[in-house]
Amino acid sequence: MSTMRAIVYHGPGRKAWEEVPLPTVQADTDAVVKVDTVTICGTDLHILGGDVAAVTDGRVLGHEAVGTVTEVGPGVKNVRVGDRVLVSCITACGACRYCRAGSYGQCIGGGGWILGHRIDGTQAGFVRVPFADTSTYAVPDGVTDEEVLMLADIGPTGFEVGVLNGRVSPGDVVAVVGAGPVGLSAIMGAKLFSPAHVVAIDLADARLEAAKQFGADITLNPAREDVVAVVRDLTQGLGADVAIEAVGVAATFEQCAQLVRPGGRVANVGVHGGPATLHLEDLWIRNVTITTGLVDTYSTPTLLRLLATHQVDLARFVTHRFAMGEFIEAYDTFARAADTRALKVVVTA
Amino acid sequence: MSTMRAIVYHGPGRKAWEEVPLPTVQADTDAVVKVDTVTICGTDLHILGGDVAAVTDGRVLGHEAVGTVTEVGPGVKNVRVGDRVLVSCITACGACRYCRAGSYGQCIGGGGWILGHRIDGTQAGFVRVPFADTSTYAVPDGVTDEEVLMLADIGPTGFEVGVLNGRVSPGDVVAVVGAGPVGLSAIMGAKLFSPAHVVAIDLADARLEAAKQFGADITLNPAREDVVAVVRDLTQGLGADVAIEAVGVAATFEQCAQLVRPGGRVANVGVHGGPATLHLEDLWIRNVTITTGLVDTYSTPTLLRLLATHQVDLARFVTHRFAMGEFIEAYDTFARAADTRALKVVVTA
Amino acid sequence: MSTMRAIVYHGPGRKAWEEVPLPTVQADTDAVVKVDTVTICGTDLHILGGDVAAVTDGRVLGHEAVGTVTEVGPGVKNVRVGDRVLVSCITACGACRYCRAGSYGQCIGGGGWILGHRIDGTQAGFVRVPFADTSTYAVPDGVTDEEVLMLADIGPTGFEVGVLNGRVSPGDVVAVVGAGPVGLSAIMGAKLFSPAHVVAIDLADARLEAAKQFGADITLNPAREDVVAVVRDLTQGLGADVAIEAVGVAATFEQCAQLVRPGGRVANVGVHGGPATLHLEDLWIRNVTITTGLVDTYSTPTLLRLLATHQVDLARFVTHRFAMGEFIEAYDTFARAADTRALKVVVTA
Amino acid sequence: MSTMRAIVYHGPGRKAWEEVPLPTVQADTDAVVKVDTVTICGTDLHILGGDVAAVTDGRVLGHEAVGTVTEVGPGVKNVRVGDRVLVSCITACGACRYCRAGSYGQCIGGGGWILGHRIDGTQAGFVRVPFADTSTYAVPDGVTDEEVLMLADIGPTGFEVGVLNGRVSPGDVVAVVGAGPVGLSAIMGAKLFSPAHVVAIDLADARLEAAKQFGADITLNPAREDVVAVVRDLTQGLGADVAIEAVGVAATFEQCAQLVRPGGRVANVGVHGGPATLHLEDLWIRNVTITTGLVDTYSTPTLLRLLATHQVDLARFVTHRFAMGEFIEAYDTFARAADTRALKVVVTA
Repeated sequence: MSTMRAIVYHGPGRKAWEEVPLPTVQADTDAVVKVDTVTICGTDLHILGGDVAAVTDGRVLGHEAVGTVTEVGPGVKNVRVGDRVLVSCITACGACRYCRAGSYGQCIGGGGWILGHRIDGTQAGFVRVPFADTSTYAVPDGVTDEEVLMLADIGPTGFEVGVLNGRVSPGDVVAVVGAGPVGLSAIMGAKLFSPAHVVAIDLADARLEAAKQFGADITLNPAREDVVAVVRDLTQGLGADVAIEAVGVAATFEQCAQLVRPGGRVANVGVHGGPATLHLEDLWIRNVTITTGLVDTYSTPTLLRLLATHQVDLARFVTHRFAMGEFIEAYDTFARAADTRALKVVVTA
Repeated sequence: MSTMRAIVYHGPGRKAWEEVPLPTVQADTDAVVKVDTVTICGTDLHILGGDVAAVTDGRVLGHEAVGTVTEVGPGVKNVRVGDRVLVSCITACGACRYCRAGSYGQCIGGGGWILGHRIDGTQAGFVRVPFADTSTYAVPDGVTDEEVLMLADIGPTGFEVGVLNGRVSPGDVVAVVGAGPVGLSAIMGAKLFSPAHVVAIDLADARLEAAKQFGADITLNPAREDVVAVVRDLTQGLGADVAIEAVGVAATFEQCAQLVRPGGRVANVGVHGGPATLHLEDLWIRNVTITTGLVDTYSTPTLLRLLATHQVDLARFVTHRFAMGEFIEAYDTFARAADTRALKVVVTA
Repeated sequence: MSTMRAIVYHGPGRKAWEEVPLPTVQADTDAVVKVDTVTICGTDLHILGGDVAAVTDGRVLGHEAVGTVTEVGPGVKNVRVGDRVLVSCITACGACRYCRAGSYGQCIGGGGWILGHRIDGTQAGFVRVPFADTSTYAVPDGVTDEEVLMLADIGPTGFEVGVLNGRVSPGDVVAVVGAGPVGLSAIMGAKLFSPAHVVAIDLADARLEAAKQFGADITLNPAREDVVAVVRDLTQGLGADVAIEAVGVAATFEQCAQLVRPGGRVANVGVHGGPATLHLEDLWIRNVTITTGLVDTYSTPTLLRLLATHQVDLARFVTHRFAMGEFIEAYDTFARAADTRALKVVVTA
Repeated sequence: MSTMRAIVYHGPGRKAWEEVPLPTVQADTDAVVKVDTVTICGTDLHILGGDVAAVTDGRVLGHEAVGTVTEVGPGVKNVRVGDRVLVSCITACGACRYCRAGSYGQCIGGGGWILGHRIDGTQAGFVRVPFADTSTYAVPDGVTDEEVLMLADIGPTGFEVGVLNGRVSPGDVVAVVGAGPVGLSAIMGAKLFSPAHVVAIDLADARLEAAKQFGADITLNPAREDVVAVVRDLTQGLGADVAIEAVGVAATFEQCAQLVRPGGRVANVGVHGGPATLHLEDLWIRNVTITTGLVDTYSTPTLLRLLATHQVDLARFVTHRFAMGEFIEAYDTFARAADTRALKVVVTA
């Protein structure tokens, strides 16, 4: 066997489930992993929309997987053939300035977000994972592949970039703007810190229903409600302690800046394609902290412990399941989430 | 004696050094302080420009002074008649949610920035100081009034809003955009943490010379130099660890956002009259932290200790000195800083 | 009416429920509060044991109450006659160096732990509360007096000195040594951060049962189990992330130091009467952090929010209820906790 | 050439400068480094005293060097033959739980302090360095080997375990107990944060003189002065903000616990051979934080930047210089530091 099937990008709007060569170990620190379970990210849709210039024709997509190690380079110390591992969206060289600081997403030693972006990814029978020792995580006992798969990207993204950057603390009022998969992950992550209220805000009522399932106690649809007024009323006129932006457009970011109290935090999680207006004439005096970030995955071991001890329910994200041969159908279901009410679709070998 | 002279605001562009009634204790926690030494803030010029709507006709201006207590209310516990005190720009009720968190600038119990703004201020023979126990500081031995006066506003503003919000750390590269008095205070404060480099950026060469005196080792004039390129070269292409905005216009804020490395911090100190553009399409992925803030003065006791032990040289700020009767001339000298090269002007009784 | 009944200390082993003069406002910032609900602390038993030298003959005991304000001094700004308030075990002057830092328990301006210690306390019909603005808290709507009363001491003590000093974080393994009321409070507080496991350790099985009710998922009796070995097995041989000492004897402190992993934290909450041995020959190399502390009550507003939004169940602490006239019986029940299985006893007017 | 000279341990009290085989790459991630400059640590004397059981007969001693890479394994990515590198006392696997958190000293993946301890060390012509990518640092331009050598152990030890663990901040009063090389490093590191005072305490006047050179402004000899009283007088009776223990005996640790104010920090740097008494009967109420730690070397890149930008003067440590052939003499000079006034002795190839 020297080939496998994979989702291959062929320019904006064009993808195929086609035959490609099997990956092999190229560098001493590489592993090759047989993909057992894989999913599709909103970012993959952005790539197919032509928004990510670094992705070129012929690239195998995907940056999330759970699988089984089939080959390792001689410099791999901790991962062995046969190991079951989580392949993270972030690859870490483990030695550069950023990796030393736990900021793997900003790796300048050849890692960062590279899978399905600068090198071939996980939506395939097999995937080559560089720097395998620092870029994969052992699958713990007693949990399902599907649950672990949610920690390849969406879990740490909502937790680190939303919840931890926003410094959610017990008793806080937390507003999460956008209740898609990443916003729901932020809601789930915020609940780990026992906030007083989690307010979910979205234009789609179906997403607000999902937000309730994930732990929001107040849901607001800006089409019907004055979101800023409701949050002010809830907080003696002050505003939310934390606002998490999980959409990626200027309007929702600007709403977050309006929602927070003096001394509050705005944590941007959304992927933006254009600028927003920052009303410094209002904000300069308000002691506000705004953070942005790509996920670093420093929290992945913590989230695996939380999963293994049942502090988080990650199965809840999975709404649709497909076999590998139905990968195109999986993409279609995920792309039409407004109709299908898909959160995460899982594709299994 | 029932009257005194004071700088009184009479609408945009109009001030006078005129006779007004002496202030008296109104609330149990008030003190009245005879003003020995007082200065003028850039904010006073903004008020005179008509930019601060809350300041109304008849208001005595000024929010910085060193003086002698002449009367205290019965609820004042720690300040006594005859005490020499620093009157801070920030008044703190000491009991509200924000004061409990050390965020006195955001006081919701009747304090915050009120002197020379919502109540009469310090540019006068005497000033009434509410919540005197938590809004004044004893003048330590062995330092001059002028030095202490620099801690009424400019010292803690540069230190808290610039240096501490920016989390300046040993070995950092710190860019300070704007080398007016507050920018110079940020430079001085940054030096307390032994950064590798402090880069001062300003369009006025005279200010860049001052920046060198205050501790900047690199000075850049954007009219002649590509500031972003120089900082990148200095930092292996990454950018500054911290960029401090000390001007208050959109262009300099946006430059700060360009100057910082992934994982860097932008600390806005400038007072802004309009919005800036936040390039989230670049920043979303760069793990940047942006902070804003009015000074809280939680660091004032620390800065007084640093002054008393000669860790900071605050006398350096004082470029011009006037008697009370020359207050209008002092304003004129400060307003024409580009010509007079004034940093801080001091008026003494 | 000029007298009231109170629990009065008359030297080691001697207390009486006797007639004493009514308290009145002495300083401008005092309030007098009619005691509606009051409880007994383990510290009160220590006082009666003669262990607290500062408590002298004639002192009214007690430092926890919920009541109604009946009189305020002219310097009190935020508390009014008729207000229902929590009287905290810690009195805060609000202006000293420690109060400015939120460390009210260390107040050097005349506050700290003074009620029922250096001045008359709450186990009485009425109590004088100094610095009322910064030493009382409004009772929120929708909660019972009993629940709020648990935040006078035990709630913030377990939370601040145990959980926050120990930096409990999501996914941690937390060992709590001692499952009396304060240990149970630490368990409840630790759960707010979603630890992977809370291990309760106590020699009394009844207390271990209570610990399960409060959220411990593993309970260990050192009389039957090798506690260190069990915790090591649970943590891949490393040890607990956090060990909280809630007994106050050398042996349990030393056990905590044995229980934590390299990089772990030991948070001492217990009140100690003698020294412990610190095995620096083992610990010097292990990156351990040890903290001690009297409660500061900076978290009381947060805990009130958590109570009002049902994130904590404080009613669970109350095992026995008495009328004021039965105060001596309440003491007896609390002192014989091993027999009566009392956690907190509540006395109501 | 297949042999070299090295300092070899032959049991308590016995070492020799003798011929041993040249080291070679054993694992893919190893490098071999020709030692250009090397020093002796107080820990080496402890080993020779027989105090470190893990060091066995035949071991080459030494865990500090600056040298030139002569061979690298195929898994080494960032270090090349001919590179000039600092060999750190701490070896980091870069992938384990502790290394991911920057706590390299606690590495459980085969690193930690192993050189001259569990594997052959640096006091030799050549040394094998495991995990070379994460255990060596490029020598920057413009600095001397001697200066860089001070960052192999002593520099980060004083900075991390003393200064950063102690959270030294601007305006603090810092007491450093013990003015040997590590204590002096802590003094130098503390100065980077602009403390109000650095108080050096030692029984040897010669060391106190050295402490002044390194930045202490107050020096105290406990043989002549009541150290606790002097520090109390300096701090309005409160005590030091930070006390750093840099001796390693019970008495000095206990003195540190006496020296700090309520809310203060005790940072233990000393290597202890026995327990100390922890006076919890005094400390339980004082909000004290005590830290211990082996150096992690996470700060080494920062210290290299500080060296390269002349924020620290590391040359000051070097008091004696020897050629490789005089290694035994170098040991003798260092062992008799009280007579020779040696701080660090440097041996050069």
